Amino acid sequence: MLHYDVVVIGSGPAGEHGAVQAASYGKKVALIEKEAVPGGASANTGTIPSKALRETALAIQQARSRDAHGIEFSVSETVTIPELMGRRGLVTAREHSRIRNRLNAAGVEQFRGVASFADAHTVRITLADGSFQDIQAEVVLLATGTRPSHPPQYTFDHQHVYDSDSILMLDTVPRSLAILGGGVAGCEYASMFAALGVHVSIIDSKPRLLPWLDAELSIAMQDLFALAGIDMHQERRAQRLEVGDRDVLVTLSDGSRLVAEKVLVAAGRQGNVESLDLAAAGLSATDKGYLEVDEHYRTKVPHIYAAGDLIGFPGLASTSMEQGRVAMTHALGKKYQQKVAELLPVGIYTIPEVSSVGATEEALKQKGIPYVVGKTPLTENARANLIGEAVGFLKLVASPQDGELLGVHCIGPHASELVHLGSAVMALGGTIHYFTQAVFNYPTLGEAYKYAAYDARAEMKRLGLPGAQLQPPAVSAVPKTA
Amino acid sequence: MLHYDVVVIGSGPAGEHGAVQAASYGKKVALIEKEAVPGGASANTGTIPSKALRETALAIQQARSRDAHGIEFSVSETVTIPELMGRRGLVTAREHSRIRNRLNAAGVEQFRGVASFADAHTVRITLADGSFQDIQAEVVLLATGTRPSHPPQYTFDHQHVYDSDSILMLDTVPRSLAILGGGVAGCEYASMFAALGVHVSIIDSKPRLLPWLDAELSIAMQDLFALAGIDMHQERRAQRLEVGDRDVLVTLSDGSRLVAEKVLVAAGRQGNVESLDLAAAGLSATDKGYLEVDEHYRTKVPHIYAAGDLIGFPGLASTSMEQGRVAMTHALGKKYQQKVAELLPVGIYTIPEVSSVGATEEALKQKGIPYVVGKTPLTENARANLIGEAVGFLKLVASPQDGELLGVHCIGPHASELVHLGSAVMALGGTIHYFTQAVFNYPTLGEAYKYAAYDARAEMKRLGLPGAQLQPPAVSAVPKTA
Repeated sequence: MLHYDVVVIGSGPAGEHGAVQAASYGKKVALIEKEAVPGGASANTGTIPSKALRETALAIQQARSRDAHGIEFSVSETVTIPELMGRRGLVTAREHSRIRNRLNAAGVEQFRGVASFADAHTVRITLADGSFQDIQAEVVLLATGTRPSHPPQYTFDHQHVYDSDSILMLDTVPRSLAILGGGVAGCEYASMFAALGVHVSIIDSKPRLLPWLDAELSIAMQDLFALAGIDMHQERRAQRLEVGDRDVLVTLSDGSRLVAEKVLVAAGRQGNVESLDLAAAGLSATDKGYLEVDEHYRTKVPHIYAAGDLIGFPGLASTSMEQGRVAMTHALGKKYQQKVAELLPVGIYTIPEVSSVGATEEALKQKGIPYVVGKTPLTENARANLIGEAVGFLKLVASPQDGELLGVHCIGPHASELVHLGSAVMALGGTIHYFTQAVFNYPTLGEAYKYAAYDARAEMKRLGLPGAQLQPPAVSAVPKTA
Repeated sequence: MLHYDVVVIGSGPAGEHGAVQAASYGKKVALIEKEAVPGGASANTGTIPSKALRETALAIQQARSRDAHGIEFSVSETVTIPELMGRRGLVTAREHSRIRNRLNAAGVEQFRGVASFADAHTVRITLADGSFQDIQAEVVLLATGTRPSHPPQYTFDHQHVYDSDSILMLDTVPRSLAILGGGVAGCEYASMFAALGVHVSIIDSKPRLLPWLDAELSIAMQDLFALAGIDMHQERRAQRLEVGDRDVLVTLSDGSRLVAEKVLVAAGRQGNVESLDLAAAGLSATDKGYLEVDEHYRTKVPHIYAAGDLIGFPGLASTSMEQGRVAMTHALGKKYQQKVAELLPVGIYTIPEVSSVGATEEALKQKGIPYVVGKTPLTENARANLIGEAVGFLKLVASPQDGELLGVHCIGPHASELVHLGSAVMALGGTIHYFTQAVFNYPTLGEAYKYAAYDARAEMKRLGLPGAQLQPPAVSAVPKTA
């Protein structure tokens, strides 16, 4: 039987990065993928394909807003979603070759097939024809990811009622779309389809979209959704879907009804564990198909690790990669990186983007930690105006004692990129004075940090707080070398 | 006579920020602007208007490259440049009201008229009708900016031969454009017009475009220009322009000739000093019309300061703002910010953007400082692929001892935004290990830092350098608070 130091199951972000990390320590690594192409939901069904559609929707919206005369920009009436996704094919193909190149360069051996446990140290790879091969593993990394949940009360025919994967295969842009669920996927699709001119309704059980976000951010997103013409049905559930010839009648929990040409059920995701035969390894999954792990991403069987969407929250490609790497570093007794950085940015690819890192105002209030807020509207940012997406704001939350940066919350163009700067300043112990003193390229979105920091400083001065002044051992904007 | 603590002349970035800074210290501040609208070259003739054209050109190029079927995108044959500038009007109007609001909120009194010195402490404001008013000043900040140079050997008729301001008033998109001068403005216009489908030639006296950039960056830019169909005539000068009915015949210093429908002379800028009557204050300008200042932006007359383009290099809005603030902080004996941060990013708004901060490889070599390079191509970045601009690279230059970040050089989409992250890490004393350990939103351009840092770390490991390892007192990606 073939023997490996590490066997990784799944080639999405957690599997890819975990496998490469293990191989970089000189270990013999096998990676098993059931699909013909690597990359998992990130490259193939979820992240990249939906972001490709988003880029097209955004370009259409910006072109309208940019108002350049002399340029014609029109969407054909019979266009399909896959056509609108434009570069999806190229981007996905590049992701596939990037992943393959990285795995090959690292010396990771790749197997195609469905993986299951024969026992805790033996992984069986089953091919389409039913034949199989067993391989032995010192360490196993489970990274099989998730798929959209299909609540039993709805019938998914993928012609009227879709999940968040099949919606990307729509053969026309519908007139109207009802989205059941106001989570991240529901919100992202809602704003994309609205930008494409679709009449969108969101039905969500919660009183606020994405209630775990900083409240001001979440409310700003709701307001922009309303401005974009999205109908919100909150604190209600869809109780019945009645499919007709040309549309779907949706009955809500309060008895009200609405008609939409298509319905998207965005009801969360569930782990891909069915084919793993976890019991053979002494493991079991939660009712959502997730695996429970400790802070080192170790399951209750000490040599079996799990990472990525399969372990649940936050279920983001960004975090999954790091989990895979940290899991393998721990499993192999290495020291380089023992933890995933505690500053986990959240990036939501609505239009406009929403992104956040560090503490929310609500969390600080709850803990009784004092703070000061500095905020700048992006309507005043020259770059945001130039790109035709001058909406939203950048908000900094800082310590009133020394201006230490505690959180960054942004809604607006490229928010998911912008928070990285705040994240670095937080991680490196910087204060808001870094932003007031640094030089930013002009015109850039990044410059917004300076105005938000001015605002925080003015508030501190007004209140006579010490954080308004540069503190003696303060972080300096002067580099150590040049 | 009216008396002011501070009189600021010019309302561009240096004047605006200097005036607001002085007012924030409780001083009585007057600002004099000769134009009806505030903002100077940044808002009105140079920065913002040219960037508005750039955004349109970029959107056209990305739409072509994004390859979305079902979307028609066409440029009318009779379109004018001001039309193509799309949002210029709105963006400029918003800049005007932003500046006015800031000046008003800070309590800066605004005068319209041409300012000149009656004596070193008296500034005369002359109106269009010849009437004038004298005001007295304890401190003067000169921020009158620059205008395009007009070398005497060329005749600027603004119908065939343009400068970098008048080119924006072109009444049609020309078939061909010869650009004399390969500096920042020349390069920016070259790539914009090429993206609009114009056949562009650059005539430049230097062997390389922007030779002060990191060599790899400058060469990459030249290569991308060549790919975009831009003809380069380097180490040559344009000796004669012969204007015909329909085009211009350009004779170069090596005797070769070329024909272009329009010519843009991008020959640098010169200071706006003529109307100031500097001699009355005991001052004089250089032959380029620049004022010489010390490290506090003070001229040789101790109470007269100068900032912005008027003092020459780098002549960027980003830097000018800080110079104005620092000058006023020094003049008024305050401490908050005594120097412009030494880390000055450079942002060049070519297509793609070029941006840089910190040390170049060439500078380190010259100083004998050892370094290691880490690089990642943006062709492999998922976000760059999604937005249809997967070109260029991100390069990090780091210390082999501890991985300290010494320089960041980027060519690619949003490069001018991307360098801010590297700038913060450098200013706060971070190392490349910050990037390998931090979590980045996915897909983002920012993620490229992680791959560039991996590359630097792999090189250090290969060479057995200590910088490959996290050092004991290392900067940690774990925040001080959460």
